[in-house]
Amino acid sequence: MAPQYAPSLRSRLAPLLLLLQLAFIVIYAFYTEIQVHGKPHGDTFSNIYPEFQDVNVMVIFGFGFLCTFLVRYGFSASAFNLLVAVMATQWAVILNGIEDYRGKIRLDLRSLVEAEMCTASVLISIGAVLGKTNPVQLIPIALLEVSGFILNKWVLQTLLKVRLVNSIMMLHIFGAFFGLMLTWILQRKGSEWRFEKEKIHHRSGLFSMLGTLFLWMFWPSFNSVLLDDRNSWGKLGAVCSTYLALAVSSVTAAALSVLSSPKGKLNLIHLQQCSLAGGVAVGVSMSVVHQPWEAMMIGFTAAVVSTIGHRYIKTQMQLAFLCHDTCAVLSTHGLPGLLGWTAHLLLQIKDCDDHTTAIHFAVFHIFTLLITIAISLVMGIITGLLLKWDFWRPPQDKKCFDDQAFWEFPKLAVRK
Amino acid sequence: MAPQYAPSLRSRLAPLLLLLQLAFIVIYAFYTEIQVHGKPHGDTFSNIYPEFQDVNVMVIFGFGFLCTFLVRYGFSASAFNLLVAVMATQWAVILNGIEDYRGKIRLDLRSLVEAEMCTASVLISIGAVLGKTNPVQLIPIALLEVSGFILNKWVLQTLLKVRLVNSIMMLHIFGAFFGLMLTWILQRKGSEWRFEKEKIHHRSGLFSMLGTLFLWMFWPSFNSVLLDDRNSWGKLGAVCSTYLALAVSSVTAAALSVLSSPKGKLNLIHLQQCSLAGGVAVGVSMSVVHQPWEAMMIGFTAAVVSTIGHRYIKTQMQLAFLCHDTCAVLSTHGLPGLLGWTAHLLLQIKDCDDHTTAIHFAVFHIFTLLITIAISLVMGIITGLLLKWDFWRPPQDKKCFDDQAFWEFPKLAVRK
Amino acid sequence: MAPQYAPSLRSRLAPLLLLLQLAFIVIYAFYTEIQVHGKPHGDTFSNIYPEFQDVNVMVIFGFGFLCTFLVRYGFSASAFNLLVAVMATQWAVILNGIEDYRGKIRLDLRSLVEAEMCTASVLISIGAVLGKTNPVQLIPIALLEVSGFILNKWVLQTLLKVRLVNSIMMLHIFGAFFGLMLTWILQRKGSEWRFEKEKIHHRSGLFSMLGTLFLWMFWPSFNSVLLDDRNSWGKLGAVCSTYLALAVSSVTAAALSVLSSPKGKLNLIHLQQCSLAGGVAVGVSMSVVHQPWEAMMIGFTAAVVSTIGHRYIKTQMQLAFLCHDTCAVLSTHGLPGLLGWTAHLLLQIKDCDDHTTAIHFAVFHIFTLLITIAISLVMGIITGLLLKWDFWRPPQDKKCFDDQAFWEFPKLAVRK
Repeated sequence: MAPQYAPSLRSRLAPLLLLLQLAFIVIYAFYTEIQVHGKPHGDTFSNIYPEFQDVNVMVIFGFGFLCTFLVRYGFSASAFNLLVAVMATQWAVILNGIEDYRGKIRLDLRSLVEAEMCTASVLISIGAVLGKTNPVQLIPIALLEVSGFILNKWVLQTLLKVRLVNSIMMLHIFGAFFGLMLTWILQRKGSEWRFEKEKIHHRSGLFSMLGTLFLWMFWPSFNSVLLDDRNSWGKLGAVCSTYLALAVSSVTAAALSVLSSPKGKLNLIHLQQCSLAGGVAVGVSMSVVHQPWEAMMIGFTAAVVSTIGHRYIKTQMQLAFLCHDTCAVLSTHGLPGLLGWTAHLLLQIKDCDDHTTAIHFAVFHIFTLLITIAISLVMGIITGLLLKWDFWRPPQDKKCFDDQAFWEFPKLAVRK
Repeated sequence: MAPQYAPSLRSRLAPLLLLLQLAFIVIYAFYTEIQVHGKPHGDTFSNIYPEFQDVNVMVIFGFGFLCTFLVRYGFSASAFNLLVAVMATQWAVILNGIEDYRGKIRLDLRSLVEAEMCTASVLISIGAVLGKTNPVQLIPIALLEVSGFILNKWVLQTLLKVRLVNSIMMLHIFGAFFGLMLTWILQRKGSEWRFEKEKIHHRSGLFSMLGTLFLWMFWPSFNSVLLDDRNSWGKLGAVCSTYLALAVSSVTAAALSVLSSPKGKLNLIHLQQCSLAGGVAVGVSMSVVHQPWEAMMIGFTAAVVSTIGHRYIKTQMQLAFLCHDTCAVLSTHGLPGLLGWTAHLLLQIKDCDDHTTAIHFAVFHIFTLLITIAISLVMGIITGLLLKWDFWRPPQDKKCFDDQAFWEFPKLAVRK
Repeated sequence: MAPQYAPSLRSRLAPLLLLLQLAFIVIYAFYTEIQVHGKPHGDTFSNIYPEFQDVNVMVIFGFGFLCTFLVRYGFSASAFNLLVAVMATQWAVILNGIEDYRGKIRLDLRSLVEAEMCTASVLISIGAVLGKTNPVQLIPIALLEVSGFILNKWVLQTLLKVRLVNSIMMLHIFGAFFGLMLTWILQRKGSEWRFEKEKIHHRSGLFSMLGTLFLWMFWPSFNSVLLDDRNSWGKLGAVCSTYLALAVSSVTAAALSVLSSPKGKLNLIHLQQCSLAGGVAVGVSMSVVHQPWEAMMIGFTAAVVSTIGHRYIKTQMQLAFLCHDTCAVLSTHGLPGLLGWTAHLLLQIKDCDDHTTAIHFAVFHIFTLLITIAISLVMGIITGLLLKWDFWRPPQDKKCFDDQAFWEFPKLAVRK
């Protein structure tokens, strides 16, 4: 029953990984150097290192284990996450470096953190196609999405003078819409209801809970790491706001998960992902959230939107658009991201002194969103079309959501 | 066989959570603000943030996963821990803020840390009733216990001029006795020996080990975070002492677990919880431990007391008093806490120059304990009586220790 | 079928642990004190504490969970790792302290970190004999190997003036060869192919992945913690180099795992352990790696060597030398360590201005390796011979790789 041979891995994945990795080494050899002096943001090693580690924990471990809830797909979810994360980060360092290129691309903890945050948008997108692609396909997704995301960042910063932290925080919206386009284009006719293995199990649920809790705990670092003003409101406010938003969205998600359940019970996957919605939403609107209650209301609304998304929109998307979204990235990152964007708009307008500034800001802010969505949709469609090419040897339906297709398993004579 | 509908969740839990959460948001909107300037303890963001994160890891992740050893109760153990932790922390910030209220309650990393440590006492208590309550009952426990604990802290600080760090470290004793009263009042006649599902399994034991090790590793932060004197003995001594006490109690717990076992084997649950006893005991006596060997002897004795508690006292409590203590909080937190209190007394008297000061201190120290135990017992009894009210719809015996009562599970067609 | 009684634990393990622990407490009481003032390296608490915690996570949690892949040996792998780690660390603090002894052994975060790094060499070695020894045997291994490792460190520092960081980083080579000698001497005739339980399972693989990822994420701290020059290249360079080396070796390990597999599939255990090879190799050569591409090439080569070792050398060792290496420490730590040593040699020679200095350095560097290997082999053989003594009651073949031999399990009436 288990597939005996995985041709796509040997003839596609291995050469692709080796070639790309050697190419990266060559590029790094000629164009990068580790920057020691003249740190641009007054960072010291002791300041930035713990925050770098927290972001690292989220990107390397958190996102991967969040996706281990699929009962037979744990090896793939966690290991492919690692592969995609390190490929995308290496690529993002190069692309980010081109922007302010002066002879050499600087390489330090700050450039690695920025690259890992670009990578996070890819990790969000692959949640939408989780279990329905083979690892070969994940590599072009990683490279194209990082390119698209950094293009978007560059457009926002150049055309609209959006601050770095605000343009990077669009990663949730970018990642979600990119992922939706991917999964829509890669849809398989007739297979919508056949993903029997797309289930949670007592044990796999706990692994997924583990990933969720680490994302939850380190999310304040994720939202605050790019803020500079170490001694004024900035970092401290971001950390407290994110904590409060996450706390409120956890409570709200639990209540709504019960209310929207036909059996009146809790759903662990919904609870996990909707608990994180508060962190997403407050991250997008971070720079204008100044009061605890603002963060809490954003967390509350994000959990409401996200739970409704999980219960109703996910199924509707599948029925109406044949758009099967494995990890429900629309509800976990897309809708809370849009909510955060809206909160940013409203709070900023409230702060404006006069009418003209408000309108001026609103127009810019709306364009920020439109450009992000446009670039993410276009790049998602391009990537999706590229992946439909048979060259990548997509897995057959019966091998979806199954580690057996890609991993060696020993025959167990002892019963476990 | 699985209960088809969970009425207590829809009609009780969801409205309760929503109402409380909205009430908290309103209170936070009117009475709190994030304090940026004038930090009271010379904290800087870079100093306090990594320690805040460590305490966060213990409260949000460690205590929850420590309780996942129950073979069919992993979802509930970890998720209810999160719910209780965030509700209790939001409430503790408010109550702590009332003490030194000047127009607005300050909200910063230090106030969040203090609130999380009050929360820890709740997380200890719910270990005693784990698996025998429904989540609705956990919410009033959280609110009432935090109130009681902060009342106790206020009484100790006002009447006896106990230092903040010493009053907060009574959390282990407070939590254990509160939890024992709860479980004693909520006892179910005739059901003492029927908890078939109160078992450990190969896999669930590893999840529990995971929680234990994270508590173990971050316990030094838990004990040292409230100490201010960053450059003198304080923090460094607390970290080294806690590390040594934990190391010694791990070794001792392993030896005694074997010696006290009828089969001469190790017991993973005992080893896990008794390894942590050293951290508990040394935390309570922290401010007078100045030599490595003092910390080590405290760790040694704590492991002895705790292992004996796990092997013999737990069963006796159940037979003699019908007091069923799921996580053995008496042995993990109560007895080591009392031991730490005794060590504090002896070491402080040893340091005293003259007889009068020693007696003076001893009287104060004994009153500290008596007040704490009195308030915890009274609050535990009040909370227990409140929870016996049918309004909360306690779970039936057959639904105890079972995730099926509260969580949606898909039917798995594939065999896992 | 499950062994009903474990005589070796009660009559050997428990007394041994208690005696040693009490002896340690006595030694600590007379000869150590916690050093607060006059920190030798300009450390402040805020600088060193987060890095201490990262190393702590690797030693207490990472190495233990890396070994949980054995399907029935998870309790033992994680709990014995904790026991060995704390015994070895307490002993290493004493031995390290004797070196620069002035009345009292200093005890601070730096001495604990150094001790934990000595401990890491033990944790590597016990990977080679994992599942084939009983916990009683692990205690003398811990004490003798730490003694040997510190002897080696002392010889290198005294005779060859090797810097502390370079002598400690030989821990991978020392641990691997020590472990190989152990397992070779402890070989069991005729039992080579009978370790039916030496397998991976869907769930145990994820626990092992968890340990791997935490080692991966905190490896930059492990490599950089002993470097002092906080504001120049040192620490920042070490962190970035380690990150890049790990990233490259993860990608390379995945590609080669596929290419070398008969079925063309990925092998999770190989991927996990070979991903870490880059961190090992770059750690050994840290002090001369100054360019990103050097770190990346080292990571690439380390993954190649390590994957080949896992696929081919492990089996050959078993067939040709009856040397059964459970965790393949030769391929994970030994070969990458030697590679790092070679890289150190080549890079240093490249940097030398004239011929004489280069030859001078090469001779010293070769002696460093020869002395390390000689001491590790001799100490490994001595320890192995000691352990063959029947006094330790080694487990029977049928109890190998099985938690049932050492742990109490409840009879589960409920089917899980």
